[in-house]
Amino acid sequence: MTEPQTIPVLDKGFVRLVDAMGDDRRIVQAARVSYGEGTKTVREDAALIDYLMRHRHTSPFEMVEFTFHVKAPIFVVRQWFRHRTASVNEISARYSVLKDEFYEPTPGELRAQSKVNKQAGEGRLPAAEAERASALLAAAGRDVYARYQELLALGVAREQARSVLPVGIYTEFYWKQDLHNLLHFLRLRLDHHAQAEIRAYARAVAEFVKARVPLVWRSFEEHVLNARTLSASEL
Amino acid sequence: MTEPQTIPVLDKGFVRLVDAMGDDRRIVQAARVSYGEGTKTVREDAALIDYLMRHRHTSPFEMVEFTFHVKAPIFVVRQWFRHRTASVNEISARYSVLKDEFYEPTPGELRAQSKVNKQAGEGRLPAAEAERASALLAAAGRDVYARYQELLALGVAREQARSVLPVGIYTEFYWKQDLHNLLHFLRLRLDHHAQAEIRAYARAVAEFVKARVPLVWRSFEEHVLNARTLSASEL
Amino acid sequence: MTEPQTIPVLDKGFVRLVDAMGDDRRIVQAARVSYGEGTKTVREDAALIDYLMRHRHTSPFEMVEFTFHVKAPIFVVRQWFRHRTASVNEISARYSVLKDEFYEPTPGELRAQSKVNKQAGEGRLPAAEAERASALLAAAGRDVYARYQELLALGVAREQARSVLPVGIYTEFYWKQDLHNLLHFLRLRLDHHAQAEIRAYARAVAEFVKARVPLVWRSFEEHVLNARTLSASEL
Amino acid sequence: MTEPQTIPVLDKGFVRLVDAMGDDRRIVQAARVSYGEGTKTVREDAALIDYLMRHRHTSPFEMVEFTFHVKAPIFVVRQWFRHRTASVNEISARYSVLKDEFYEPTPGELRAQSKVNKQAGEGRLPAAEAERASALLAAAGRDVYARYQELLALGVAREQARSVLPVGIYTEFYWKQDLHNLLHFLRLRLDHHAQAEIRAYARAVAEFVKARVPLVWRSFEEHVLNARTLSASEL
Ligand SMILES: Cc1cc2nc3c(=O)[nH]c(=O)nc-3n(C[C@H](O)[C@H](O)[C@H](O)COP(=O)(O)OP(=O)(O)OC[C@H]3O[C@@H](n4cnc5c(N)ncnc54)[C@H](O)[C@@H]3O)c2cc1C
Ligand SMILES: Cc1cc2nc3c(=O)[nH]c(=O)nc-3n(C[C@H](O)[C@H](O)[C@H](O)COP(=O)(O)OP(=O)(O)OC[C@H]3O[C@@H](n4cnc5c(N)ncnc54)[C@H](O)[C@@H]3O)c2cc1C
Ligand SMILES: Cc1cc2nc3c(=O)[nH]c(=O)nc-3n(C[C@H](O)[C@H](O)[C@H](O)COP(=O)(O)OP(=O)(O)OC[C@H]3O[C@@H](n4cnc5c(N)ncnc54)[C@H](O)[C@@H]3O)c2cc1C
Ligand SMILES: Cc1cc2nc3c(=O)[nH]c(=O)nc-3n(C[C@H](O)[C@H](O)[C@H](O)COP(=O)(O)OP(=O)(O)OC[C@H]3O[C@@H](n4cnc5c(N)ncnc54)[C@H](O)[C@@H]3O)c2cc1C
Repeated sequence: MTEPQTIPVLDKGFVRLVDAMGDDRRIVQAARVSYGEGTKTVREDAALIDYLMRHRHTSPFEMVEFTFHVKAPIFVVRQWFRHRTASVNEISARYSVLKDEFYEPTPGELRAQSKVNKQAGEGRLPAAEAERASALLAAAGRDVYARYQELLALGVAREQARSVLPVGIYTEFYWKQDLHNLLHFLRLRLDHHAQAEIRAYARAVAEFVKARVPLVWRSFEEHVLNARTLSASEL
Repeated sequence: MTEPQTIPVLDKGFVRLVDAMGDDRRIVQAARVSYGEGTKTVREDAALIDYLMRHRHTSPFEMVEFTFHVKAPIFVVRQWFRHRTASVNEISARYSVLKDEFYEPTPGELRAQSKVNKQAGEGRLPAAEAERASALLAAAGRDVYARYQELLALGVAREQARSVLPVGIYTEFYWKQDLHNLLHFLRLRLDHHAQAEIRAYARAVAEFVKARVPLVWRSFEEHVLNARTLSASEL
Repeated sequence: MTEPQTIPVLDKGFVRLVDAMGDDRRIVQAARVSYGEGTKTVREDAALIDYLMRHRHTSPFEMVEFTFHVKAPIFVVRQWFRHRTASVNEISARYSVLKDEFYEPTPGELRAQSKVNKQAGEGRLPAAEAERASALLAAAGRDVYARYQELLALGVAREQARSVLPVGIYTEFYWKQDLHNLLHFLRLRLDHHAQAEIRAYARAVAEFVKARVPLVWRSFEEHVLNARTLSASEL
Repeated sequence: MTEPQTIPVLDKGFVRLVDAMGDDRRIVQAARVSYGEGTKTVREDAALIDYLMRHRHTSPFEMVEFTFHVKAPIFVVRQWFRHRTASVNEISARYSVLKDEFYEPTPGELRAQSKVNKQAGEGRLPAAEAERASALLAAAGRDVYARYQELLALGVAREQARSVLPVGIYTEFYWKQDLHNLLHFLRLRLDHHAQAEIRAYARAVAEFVKARVPLVWRSFEEHVLNARTLSASEL
């Protein structure tokens, strides 16, 4: 059982490691079932892990498992839950009244709409616009939460009243996933195509992974994160 | 290729059948690979399907596939996407400006919070409260959309500006799933424990399923939907 | 980390627990993320687990994970690996020479072909037939293994030479699966419709599950294993 | 509904296309749900598909589905079924008596064990050894099948009698998988690391894929099959 630890993310969120099973040696041990007895030193273990990573022998990486407790805004969670190879438990907004905690980026954290990449924010807003936008966002949270409370006070069911709550509100969930699919998640969500907010969470998750399976992490950086694929005509 | 058809759901949503592959006979044909040549008449097909359903031989039901195009509020979609055994493509609110379409239940569609079942709405609200709540919901959508537009006008990236949008806003997606897992979805989402709004969508999906695989549907009603499990001590 | 333990199965096989993550309390803890703080006593935990089991709230059961090391004949493994919700690593018969270990049932373990159930064995064989059959099976293993060795001696690639090896030969693998899907496996493979040989393995797996999550196991027996479903027309 | 077609593989096997759903245009159509209306010409479709393939936007490729009927030796099927993202129905050797059809490579099809690559066959055997080995394989099938029949005649249950049957015996199954995961299967099983026998099946599957989604196929060859990944230190 790993020591619980918590890494704060964004203004009110966090990633906490609840538990993990297996480590670098488990991967080697599982691979050895296939390839017979063999490597013994850390150096040989590292070489075997590197071989598996390079040749996409991904099944041994599935032998390691992580469970996280995460607090994040709904719009981040919506992106996160598109990854289906995981087990999840989330707060029910039918069962509980959600708290008034919204993602409120500071003026300096607001990004301008990119002209080139239709899908992303890019660069800072001018100071005045940023101030105005940040204030707007804060006001939006306050106003909407007052309405939510009014709906509840009128007796409206929580499951319907919550329909006014914004996707910037914080929610919490447990996330359990094996290392192979977690690395796949990290590859996609550490990438600069991913939205900055989920990238902040991915970096926190990566910290825990790196600490648990250092040999795998080095190999992942070498062969995946910092590798480059040349297409047939580029070769 | 099946005729595209559309069933309206809630105030602005729909379920549309995009395509389907296989039918009652495909299931029988796949099961026959296992059990050898055999049934020939519709009656024998029905009996075989019933046998498979009763004994949870679920793999032949996976041989049939459906693709839907759905328009639904985000809070419904959040429940829907928890089902992981499907393929999905959804509008990107990073890429596109979302339209100002919100789920706005009429006063008669608003439910009171149940005292017994913490997770559900139950029964109508008194008329005055219902009127007030319905007006509140409509105003919430309008106000928030104005703020969204203002944020966009200030140059804020769409991916950040959308954080003010409520989970009651409509989104669209493609949903592709095999029949076995779709029946599992229907079992959970036609059930009275599910929120009324997603049950409305489940009923629309069920219409398409029923039309495509009538023998399976009859068997599903008999052995799953309207069956009852007695626990060991109830026996 | 759980103590490794080994349960012998059939004449030469075993199930060994390599590792496990989570227990009854983890399930309760994960469910509480959804339903808020609450149960505290073991009694309350048991009631919550029972509620989840009865209402098929299966996601909290996915929070517990098991890793087994198994040695079994290929025909058992072929049935086992049809369960897709698991991670696997198996000996490679391309990489290694398989050992001459075959499943050799004693005369008393041989079953007669059922006349009623085309899919099963049922009852004992007459003594003389059983003796003869048991001797035949033993001879088959010996002869075939000699041929395998001769093919290897001729220089034939292991991956081709192994094509003479019977599905009764033993192989080994790591099996990692979450508790929800493991219970599903057990439900199907403890059932009397399953072949006696895989049922023997399922019983060994069940021992480990029972020891790790006793509250879940009791609930599973009550609501699944020993429950009975009445169809609509039987009600 | 696509025309059923059959491609023979190995000495007695085949791959037959049973059905397919969707094509290049479906992928574009699904992607457009995310990115809004847009491309119209085949040329623009090809560019969009290329973009999706290059950037690993894999979800639109899941919108296309294939169903195959395959006849192959068990040792090939054992490799095939390790791919879990598919739906399967296979002949039951508990229910039916298997036919005496074995994979019997001609002398020219036998491979020598590679010294370099422990996992593979490589190059031809000398003629004399090849003749001898081929004869041995043929005899092995005949002898073992006689024993199988004798066990059945003694009254042994089919499910136990089959334990003498070799992994070189042919079996049949239905295989249904989405295009994204089928491409993943092809990438791994067309590769020279895969065993020659399953590569022969992969080539047959590839024929059907190529015919159904020509734009995807071109892009897959360019960005996956014939691409090369340079690791961080190779860059
Ligand atoms: C009335 C109701 C109330 C609910 N309340 C809550 C709540 O308060 N909090 C909450 O978090 N959720 C809640 N849920 C969601 C619920 O926990 C499930 O996530 C959802 O119903 C999907 O069910 P599923 O996992 O069986 O379906 P699918 O995801 O479609 O999976 C079907 C089956 O496939 C297998 N499977 C698929 N993917 C995986 C995987 N990655 N790992 C392992 N096995 C897999 C499993 O056997 C699973 O049973 C609720 C659901 C209902 C119907
Ligand atoms: C930068 C970026 C932009 C994106 N933009 C959009 C967008 O505009 N619209 C949109 O809809 N999505 C978008 N996505 C989400 C994307 O399409 C994927 O849904 C998400 O990244 C999860 O990836 P995955 O499917 O590989 O992961 P997982 O769901 O974890 O799956 C991993 C692998 O498991 C297999 N698998 C798991 N479940 C299934 C299943 N049910 N059926 C078949 N195979 C399965 C597949 O091989 C899959 O590759 C975006 C993602 C990123 C990173
Ligand atoms: C040349 C070669 C040699 C091999 N040698 C060996 C060997 O010696 N021993 C051995 O055991 N295997 C061996 N394999 C098999 C290999 O380990 C994989 O099991 C097989 O290739 C299937 O790959 P996959 O898991 O990516 O595919 P799929 O099972 O189709 O999965 C596709 C993706 O979906 C996701 N996914 C699907 N199901 C699950 C699940 N239950 N849990 C988590 N994620 C899931 C994962 O992201 C996965 O990458 C070999 C394969 C090849 C090609
Ligand atoms: C007594 C008995 C007799 C049998 N006879 C035969 C036979 O004659 N022929 C034969 O072919 N099989 C036979 N089977 C195997 C059976 O069809 C199933 O393949 C096997 O039991 C695994 O069950 P599962 O799919 O529910 O489990 P898992 O593969 O563990 O899946 C659990 C759940 O996860 C979801 N899931 C996981 N992977 C996928 C995926 N790729 N696509 C969609 N959903 C997925 C589904 O909801 C599934 O129900 C038999 C099984 C039993 C117990």
